Amino acid sequence: MTNSSADRPLTPVLDLINLPTDLKALTDRQLRQLADELRAETISAVSQTGGHLGAGLGVVELTVALHAVFDAPRDKIIWDVGHQCYPHKILTGRRDRIRTLRAEGGLSGFTKRSESPFDPFGAGHSSTSISAALGFAMARELGGDPGDAVAVIGDGAMSAGMAFEALNNAGHLGKRLFVILNDNEMSIAPPVGALSTYLTRLYAGGPFQDLKAAAKGAVGLLPEPFQQGAKRARDLLKGMAVGGTLFEQLGFSYIGPVDGHDLDQLLPLLRTVKARATGPVLLHVVTQKGKGYAPAERAADKGHATAKFDVLTGAQAKAPSNAPSYTSVFAKSLIDQASRDDRIVAVTAAMPDGTGLNLFAERFPRRCFDVGIAEQHAVTFSAGLAAGGMRPFCAIYSTFLQRGYDQIVHDVAIQRLPVRFAIDRAGLVGADGATHAGSYDTAFLSNLPGFVVMAAADEADLVHMVATAAAHEEGPIAFRYPRGEGTGVDLPERGQPIEIGRGRIIAEGARVAILSFGTRLSEVMAARESLAARGLAPTVADARFAKPLDHDLILRLVAEHEAIITVEEGAIGGFGSHVAQFLAERGVFDRGFRFRQMVLPDTFIDHAAPQAMYAAAAMNAPQIEARVLELLSVSMARRA
Amino acid sequence: MTNSSADRPLTPVLDLINLPTDLKALTDRQLRQLADELRAETISAVSQTGGHLGAGLGVVELTVALHAVFDAPRDKIIWDVGHQCYPHKILTGRRDRIRTLRAEGGLSGFTKRSESPFDPFGAGHSSTSISAALGFAMARELGGDPGDAVAVIGDGAMSAGMAFEALNNAGHLGKRLFVILNDNEMSIAPPVGALSTYLTRLYAGGPFQDLKAAAKGAVGLLPEPFQQGAKRARDLLKGMAVGGTLFEQLGFSYIGPVDGHDLDQLLPLLRTVKARATGPVLLHVVTQKGKGYAPAERAADKGHATAKFDVLTGAQAKAPSNAPSYTSVFAKSLIDQASRDDRIVAVTAAMPDGTGLNLFAERFPRRCFDVGIAEQHAVTFSAGLAAGGMRPFCAIYSTFLQRGYDQIVHDVAIQRLPVRFAIDRAGLVGADGATHAGSYDTAFLSNLPGFVVMAAADEADLVHMVATAAAHEEGPIAFRYPRGEGTGVDLPERGQPIEIGRGRIIAEGARVAILSFGTRLSEVMAARESLAARGLAPTVADARFAKPLDHDLILRLVAEHEAIITVEEGAIGGFGSHVAQFLAERGVFDRGFRFRQMVLPDTFIDHAAPQAMYAAAAMNAPQIEARVLELLSVSMARRA
Repeated sequence: MTNSSADRPLTPVLDLINLPTDLKALTDRQLRQLADELRAETISAVSQTGGHLGAGLGVVELTVALHAVFDAPRDKIIWDVGHQCYPHKILTGRRDRIRTLRAEGGLSGFTKRSESPFDPFGAGHSSTSISAALGFAMARELGGDPGDAVAVIGDGAMSAGMAFEALNNAGHLGKRLFVILNDNEMSIAPPVGALSTYLTRLYAGGPFQDLKAAAKGAVGLLPEPFQQGAKRARDLLKGMAVGGTLFEQLGFSYIGPVDGHDLDQLLPLLRTVKARATGPVLLHVVTQKGKGYAPAERAADKGHATAKFDVLTGAQAKAPSNAPSYTSVFAKSLIDQASRDDRIVAVTAAMPDGTGLNLFAERFPRRCFDVGIAEQHAVTFSAGLAAGGMRPFCAIYSTFLQRGYDQIVHDVAIQRLPVRFAIDRAGLVGADGATHAGSYDTAFLSNLPGFVVMAAADEADLVHMVATAAAHEEGPIAFRYPRGEGTGVDLPERGQPIEIGRGRIIAEGARVAILSFGTRLSEVMAARESLAARGLAPTVADARFAKPLDHDLILRLVAEHEAIITVEEGAIGGFGSHVAQFLAERGVFDRGFRFRQMVLPDTFIDHAAPQAMYAAAAMNAPQIEARVLELLSVSMARRA
Repeated sequence: MTNSSADRPLTPVLDLINLPTDLKALTDRQLRQLADELRAETISAVSQTGGHLGAGLGVVELTVALHAVFDAPRDKIIWDVGHQCYPHKILTGRRDRIRTLRAEGGLSGFTKRSESPFDPFGAGHSSTSISAALGFAMARELGGDPGDAVAVIGDGAMSAGMAFEALNNAGHLGKRLFVILNDNEMSIAPPVGALSTYLTRLYAGGPFQDLKAAAKGAVGLLPEPFQQGAKRARDLLKGMAVGGTLFEQLGFSYIGPVDGHDLDQLLPLLRTVKARATGPVLLHVVTQKGKGYAPAERAADKGHATAKFDVLTGAQAKAPSNAPSYTSVFAKSLIDQASRDDRIVAVTAAMPDGTGLNLFAERFPRRCFDVGIAEQHAVTFSAGLAAGGMRPFCAIYSTFLQRGYDQIVHDVAIQRLPVRFAIDRAGLVGADGATHAGSYDTAFLSNLPGFVVMAAADEADLVHMVATAAAHEEGPIAFRYPRGEGTGVDLPERGQPIEIGRGRIIAEGARVAILSFGTRLSEVMAARESLAARGLAPTVADARFAKPLDHDLILRLVAEHEAIITVEEGAIGGFGSHVAQFLAERGVFDRGFRFRQMVLPDTFIDHAAPQAMYAAAAMNAPQIEARVLELLSVSMARRA
């Protein structure tokens, strides 16, 4: 097998499938073959596109079984997070575009309502599926869309509070609803938390023999051959005041654990629960992430996310990097700071690798906390650590920090606790698309009293910002930086704290000043170079701080220029809005001073390469240059 | 007993207590008397101040027991939400100020770090206490502040996802930590959800006899007299593959349920667990909200929140209202809309009374969902309902909507689902203080693509905005309105949809235009009246929409005036920031147009009457008038 289309896997059964209805014509034996072909096709496709591989491979049989038994799109199959949806996309009319995954104009790497009626609810962030499915189920009960609602959620995603909230509500409402717990003991990193231990205990020591015994609350939902043993188990447990599984205590009928790679178990179980369930059912399915592809099975992350790769060897075609990633620079800088301040601890919400805190944990295992997919808790836990005298760095991607917003306001900001927020993936993120864009953090943090909000313009400044955060004792502080490689600048040996609220002039120029916040600085400088060639070089400044603003710097730029343009990788309401308010308050506009904000546009931008997304956002060097010229022409028109 | 200070209850034992250390000198018998006196003092104080009564009365014995056994402030006692902290305040050096509760300059109605070292972690929003306590516990383990961490959390608060996240993390970390589940089957409204049913089952049919049997996982933590029975129970359960309580499954030693009003149970239990616990312990305490005060016990809300009252009769001294509350106007308008559109459903997160949805539920019981304290789920559940064809109104206070922010972005906005957000308690809220201020919703919603964001200027316009939301099918829409009474305007018989993005001129004037967003309009009009007396009446417009902006209206104001002032009950980044960006983009500033934003200041404003809080925020009529005069003087100075 190679990556050329001529050598695609032979898929005679899969070739018969255009839509899930076509599965109804297949025998169970053919469905088994379909699963094998679907796995090969998934591997082949991702080898060409890169993307999330392990999760999809783990649910190949489950995907086939769900589409064989349920009737999508009438029945709503909701894939939590969506990492595992590639096989689903192949079976639901999108096979012809599966090799466009995550590319500009191609299929999304997640489920997406606008892409297909077979995606009833889009995903990207985890742990939303039960809430959404319950919404569909209750809509159905009230005369809305008919059909069943099926949520497929991983054990990692189940650790998030909102999944618990949804289970709690679904158990209370008691209506027919299917939750399939896809338990692979592996979300992105190995899951942590007591729930994970509990789930493991449910099938420790002979996982699948326990099926009958463990289905005690759901005997009527079992296929006949399973029932006798289950009844006996139920009798054994009867009369116990406090018995049953966690899920039964929350009002679900629990069935499992079952082998999620065995269609001979999955098909009869799904057929039976579909025929008989009257209330909420949780089906506990044990799968193996990366199943059936040796290089993924062997990998530490089970092939979670991969670049393009050679199918035969699994070797990934990674472009050589020219500069260290912002993530690794953050991690190394934090380790350096922590080596000199033993109050420094680190908190991640299930992203030790993505945030670089895996490196920190290697060095300081006791001082690193992976709290699971639990951003609300991560923030307030950090606040508690700070109140107890520690100096926590809470490292969360911009888009996921939205999950902890209230805790940032209520537990950190109001109490002025010295929690340091390391905000990775700020700005547009590329192939993960709109759901993962880090667009809002500057806005939602900068209007909180007492917060300090920084953005690194390059990886060297990130080193200094980690040092600045480590030295800041007076309250909360945040610093943002983008996904991917740095600019390649020399890194300082050790970070030096920056004076709070102090920006810097990068290049002197005339007439127009560009005040940049974050890593658009390189595009700003490219624009400046082009303008300089025409004798129109603007001044360029790096604000470094959205809060507090550098009033002296801004007033100096006002005094020495005709116009200011702010540039930031964020939505309106953030840095530029704070500058605008300052200028208005100081009466600068009263005197006819020209001001423009360049912010992310008022649209959600679909996945593409980051550079292409910023082009769509009109925030690359050519568009920055155009804004300067436009301002100068206003000026020239007035003079003429 | 009356409300005069001369007739305060006799409290000989309580009078001996200045700080919790003084409790150590008391016998258990004296502690019982102390509890009785503490209850009387709490009732007496709240009868004079108003405030949260029922929650405090429910934990009088628990408060005494905790302070008798633990060593605050070295040990950190963290009261979840803080509603129940008045007895704690009385015992921790604040008795002399207890009759200033919730008044300007007086004690906060919640715990507050800046108020006392005995408040190690402030509260106001629910379900944060376990996360915070775990932070203290892990800080201690790493050499931070010494002492035990004790979280006291209600059964309602336990339904929130973040409490589950914290339990899951605490069970995993396995360090010494105390969680006291204060189970009164009553948070503000009766709790809902499967967890609540589960907790009830734990003590159904003979609650306190079950103590020994239910402590099977924590035998070593029990006082001697309890142990023998418990051991027997544990043996009974031994060998069960799937046994134990939900909390044990999450890694806690579970003890309970115990009678939370019986110091003879509480004191030995707390002493023993304090002496012996090595890991996380959950103590399940059953209490009665409003305990010991007949009028509270009798009330439907168990005396949750009360005005000043007569101690003898319980009769509350409520000021007669001049106008219907915004909350009730919303509820009635929604019922009217729902009577003509059976797709309309309503969702509340444990605040049926506070949001007015109790009225909606009476009329449409199947179409109203109380999901518990679960804002994340509430939002995504609403998104699922909308995707399933319903038209949900998700009614959440501004401050609590922060809990569902990511879900608003990810599940509602990106998918453009027609979820309608009814945002009560927008702006400053009075006695609940900074933790409950609704300051940020306009900012965090208005930068989301496709969102419509409205604010009602009076209760009549709220009626129209409910109709506008009900008619809006193209995506999400939100409308905000404040706590308290309306302005007294005539209400329309039926709401009429407002054209999306269309504001209105309220009063024509000259030179300066005030563009108001929300209920500051009445203050703006008062300012206008005062200015008119000096011949300086400004034009006043009601923007109605922060998004989309009424470009035509704004440009007309620009064309016909020298200056615009925006006024809104929110932080920077919201309405005024959007207007500023629009004016900048249109080159309005280039021509020397004067612009000012009046937004909430960059401070957290402490509790006081709303009018006083807005005075502190410099957003009442006199300050608005002053801003107009300041702008006019700029103008006059220039002309001179």
